[in-house]
Amino acid sequence: MNAAERNVFLHDVPLEAARARFADALAQAGVRNDAIETLALGDAFDRVTARPVAARLSSPHYHACAMDGIAVVAARTAGALETAPLELSAEEAPVVDTGDPLPDGFDAVIPIELIEPRANGRVAIRAAVAPFEHVRAIGEDVVATEVVVPAYRQLRPADLAACAAAGVASIDVVRRPRVALITTGDELVDVTVAVPPPGAIVDSNAVLLAACVRQYGGVVTIASRVVDDEEPLARAVEQALGACDVVVVNAGSSAGRDDHTARVFRRFGDVVVHGVAIRPGHPLVLGVAAAARVPLLGIPGYPVSAAICADLFLRPLLEQLGRTEAPEPREIVVELSRKLFSPLGEDEYVRAVAARVEGRLVATPLQRGAGVITSLSRANVLLTIPRFSEGVRAGAQIPARALRPLAQIERTLLAVGSHDVALDLLAGRLAASEIELVSAHVGSIAGLVALRERACHLAGTHVLDPATGIYNDEAVRRYGPAVPVALIRLAEREQGILAAPGNPLGLRTLADIAGTGARYVNRQRDAGTRILFDSLLAAAGIAPAAIVGYERLEFSHLAVGQLVANGSADAGLAIRAAAHAFGLDFVSIAWEPYELALPAAALDEPRIRLLVETLRDSAFRAEVEALGGYDTANAGRVRIVTPAAVAAR
Amino acid sequence: MNAAERNVFLHDVPLEAARARFADALAQAGVRNDAIETLALGDAFDRVTARPVAARLSSPHYHACAMDGIAVVAARTAGALETAPLELSAEEAPVVDTGDPLPDGFDAVIPIELIEPRANGRVAIRAAVAPFEHVRAIGEDVVATEVVVPAYRQLRPADLAACAAAGVASIDVVRRPRVALITTGDELVDVTVAVPPPGAIVDSNAVLLAACVRQYGGVVTIASRVVDDEEPLARAVEQALGACDVVVVNAGSSAGRDDHTARVFRRFGDVVVHGVAIRPGHPLVLGVAAAARVPLLGIPGYPVSAAICADLFLRPLLEQLGRTEAPEPREIVVELSRKLFSPLGEDEYVRAVAARVEGRLVATPLQRGAGVITSLSRANVLLTIPRFSEGVRAGAQIPARALRPLAQIERTLLAVGSHDVALDLLAGRLAASEIELVSAHVGSIAGLVALRERACHLAGTHVLDPATGIYNDEAVRRYGPAVPVALIRLAEREQGILAAPGNPLGLRTLADIAGTGARYVNRQRDAGTRILFDSLLAAAGIAPAAIVGYERLEFSHLAVGQLVANGSADAGLAIRAAAHAFGLDFVSIAWEPYELALPAAALDEPRIRLLVETLRDSAFRAEVEALGGYDTANAGRVRIVTPAAVAAR
Repeated sequence: MNAAERNVFLHDVPLEAARARFADALAQAGVRNDAIETLALGDAFDRVTARPVAARLSSPHYHACAMDGIAVVAARTAGALETAPLELSAEEAPVVDTGDPLPDGFDAVIPIELIEPRANGRVAIRAAVAPFEHVRAIGEDVVATEVVVPAYRQLRPADLAACAAAGVASIDVVRRPRVALITTGDELVDVTVAVPPPGAIVDSNAVLLAACVRQYGGVVTIASRVVDDEEPLARAVEQALGACDVVVVNAGSSAGRDDHTARVFRRFGDVVVHGVAIRPGHPLVLGVAAAARVPLLGIPGYPVSAAICADLFLRPLLEQLGRTEAPEPREIVVELSRKLFSPLGEDEYVRAVAARVEGRLVATPLQRGAGVITSLSRANVLLTIPRFSEGVRAGAQIPARALRPLAQIERTLLAVGSHDVALDLLAGRLAASEIELVSAHVGSIAGLVALRERACHLAGTHVLDPATGIYNDEAVRRYGPAVPVALIRLAEREQGILAAPGNPLGLRTLADIAGTGARYVNRQRDAGTRILFDSLLAAAGIAPAAIVGYERLEFSHLAVGQLVANGSADAGLAIRAAAHAFGLDFVSIAWEPYELALPAAALDEPRIRLLVETLRDSAFRAEVEALGGYDTANAGRVRIVTPAAVAAR
Repeated sequence: MNAAERNVFLHDVPLEAARARFADALAQAGVRNDAIETLALGDAFDRVTARPVAARLSSPHYHACAMDGIAVVAARTAGALETAPLELSAEEAPVVDTGDPLPDGFDAVIPIELIEPRANGRVAIRAAVAPFEHVRAIGEDVVATEVVVPAYRQLRPADLAACAAAGVASIDVVRRPRVALITTGDELVDVTVAVPPPGAIVDSNAVLLAACVRQYGGVVTIASRVVDDEEPLARAVEQALGACDVVVVNAGSSAGRDDHTARVFRRFGDVVVHGVAIRPGHPLVLGVAAAARVPLLGIPGYPVSAAICADLFLRPLLEQLGRTEAPEPREIVVELSRKLFSPLGEDEYVRAVAARVEGRLVATPLQRGAGVITSLSRANVLLTIPRFSEGVRAGAQIPARALRPLAQIERTLLAVGSHDVALDLLAGRLAASEIELVSAHVGSIAGLVALRERACHLAGTHVLDPATGIYNDEAVRRYGPAVPVALIRLAEREQGILAAPGNPLGLRTLADIAGTGARYVNRQRDAGTRILFDSLLAAAGIAPAAIVGYERLEFSHLAVGQLVANGSADAGLAIRAAAHAFGLDFVSIAWEPYELALPAAALDEPRIRLLVETLRDSAFRAEVEALGGYDTANAGRVRIVTPAAVAAR
């Protein structure tokens, strides 16, 4: 199928129009979920009542004593006063416990605290009581036949207890919508395959969508994977139509394959949307199998597109059919940390990390590739850039959807800057104390700029000043905030040349890299490692043009290590831990301090104090040194850098 | 045990102090949950990672083509221009699909849309490309060894998909805290017992607490019910200590029984709290079994107390041990609809129904008895009256905890006023359209007052004006809002005397009630039925004092029916549906219109329009008439009553 053909099918419509068309089609086809299951109370938590629950018994089902004490005839207590106590005989005042039936002929209870024992089992009281005082009358809580829980109520503990009190032992609930999940693609392999061959793709979308169905209150009753052909897909859909309430087909990652989905859907009913103007997410297919009254969803293959389309279309469908609803309010407003461009005509969803910085909820966008599912896992908010906007300026307040509980977002400690593996270990330690340390990898200098713009709490930095040979001070003064800045030492770490095992090209110096024509993989412009590399090149008198691959950029140590390990590159500059992780040779070039910068005023914050304590903890230090290439002797050391403007005052 | 003895144990402490003591005791005993389970991805949704998840494979694990198109050597494309296309041979431009491995020796992809086919399989391009353009490089998404999901993260669909993409097929998660749930009490019977004898109590707390444990992320591994003695309880606790992470003992409803709990707890460790200054909830016992490192909770027996203590103490404990957290933000602020008194020195939790009325979130308190579990099920918020306050004035903004999703609270349509069974049927119909019609039963006139004070949307009313014989108009003018009021007819309903089956006392008129000395059960002062009764008594020249039980008040038709059915009363005035529900004799006295009052301006609101349509629906009318004693010929009729002040303008 060529582009022209494909364009015949792809008529992208705006989100609201797509939703409206789909809703109309479902209504017209009479799609609904009337199925009912009867469950014992113990199994009904969080399920949704299919009809009102009527009390079988009253509660209490007898006049119950509401206190430990004595039962009395209220009229007989008239005249009892503080100054003139009234004595009652044992027969006139039988002892009762809370919950006991009120004895026949009595109509009130006096609590034990208000009774004075006298001789011969007699008791004195010092106040009269009214009829039915301290008695829970029949039906005080619920009266038989009364509605205890209304229809379509999601059952919480108190609802189930109310049913139990009303003698209702089982409840009719709405059956969970049954979903058929069909993934297509010759290249898909199961996640349990140990070493997928090149071209094979782990079927992560099957995992994603199954979890989505569960999250939205449905149940996957058919999960199948078919090869990328129209007939097998048609057979799978046909089977599913008879047994499920919703059919979801997940295309392979090829755009061409979505057309199988639309063609197959047309065999069983109408396709009402093919392509929606959202990004990522375009090639969505929505239809309905009229005879079976089953909604048909073709979800795009790119993982982030799949996740976003599931959230926008499958979630409301399953919530409607299951009569459930998302417990969290998910729409919030965040301040954008940096300018974002976005195409006109498409609603764009951008993964971001939000954190509360100096009172503002600031969001830092993450990578945008639709294939990068980890960006959706790392994100805690999804920014929405509407289609009538070409972009959003830094500092703007924009709508976002919370992907994590708001409380978790609120307690996020955001580190923006250079990447370091030890930061992941630190995050693990802090998580045990419910501190959510999240890092976005943008390089040292971009991190300091983010700190200046109050878009993060911490900036991980290791920037050499070639003029002085001192790390970080000058960069903090130049790019950091105009207030005293604390630098907390994470560790000293060893930078060096990564080379294939055995170092086949015999690389010992940067000059060897230039001399052998080794394929180098570089870091992005603002990375501390890049600044080190450029400084070392200059010191050695090597022109960047002499390095093959000088323009090939990666954003982390591990990514550099991966490319060398895979043979796509012969050399890179990175920390020893990256060599260690991939079993590469490592030629030590320099030790450098890696520090976390933050406004000095924040040092007293409890989270920061705990962070510093953790860095000084010997068990944590041992864990970091075990990575290889780390010296933690100074970990947790704090020093203050005062900006020139402040120092000059 | 007498009161003096009990007071030795009950030292009520404020909520925060109780929490702090409990937390200290747990920390000192070293209570924690280090247990780990390894789960397949498909089973790990919503569970919490016990350690960071490291990528086993990179993703992509090869250089993957990111578009359908051709693979090229980027350098070879230099010079291609819009005005000077460059031709490539089939060998220089192999066709690739999205997801294919990039062929060896090639370093970029050009999408099919940008290619012009030429003769001999050659293609022309009109722009140069950079290396790695439209290529997903190895590790673009995730690099092997990198942390994919941090420790203590509750796993959502995107997290599981990221794990799958990184080749991780199983995850170590925190084991759910195992809870032993021991209910005590000789009088407890299972909810499945068809007809509990008087004095027997359905063990609704076992249902409540089991659902709470599940809601808070724990799992009940031992559920036992023991008789109300110290030794059996001690044996049950001892067994539980070896096999569970938390022991919860739920007392019977007797205060004396809690002391068993505290004594038994002391055998195994320390009791640090016995009695907490909250209402309801007082007799809470908190301790820790030191040797087993197991927290011990004695939860009070009154159902609402149990639910509130579980929420305040068991929820945070299980969330801490399971490292989960409640997804919903639960603290909101509401406007109180009427004055509330509250004891000094105790934090009081008041069940209430909140709804958005004219922009304000207004909460109407429900019944306060700690035994009334249905009030907690009916409530959608729990008001908090702090212990340093003796009460709160009407109109005050007070803190509350949401018991339902905020969206559901926001769409609540609140009817305050007279009780009518047909309202429950109407609520069921509206629920199908996601309208949450909730009614609070306070009587007709109190409902009109609430409407005037903008504390509800609708007031159900049937108030006779004895002077004119006309229903509702005069009451609306006197008590309702000072704007035109619409009255929507729900139905005409038949009021009459309820009597035991066969009408043994031969009651035909109100005079018979007075004459036979029948035990009457009356309605509260503002109820329309009470006004009718008083008006009929006056018309017949009968003095209230001549009615036995004139002062015995119930708040609903069903409650009156229940008391007559049970033989606690001989007669009551109520609608025929109440007689029908209990199989009572019914002596018709009057037909009266039951109407829903609301500001006329609200008639155009979509929810109100749907309500009126529903009332006019023939299927709904048939359902109401099937209750007996309803005439729905005028259901859905709307008329307007204009207040005197407005009419006079």
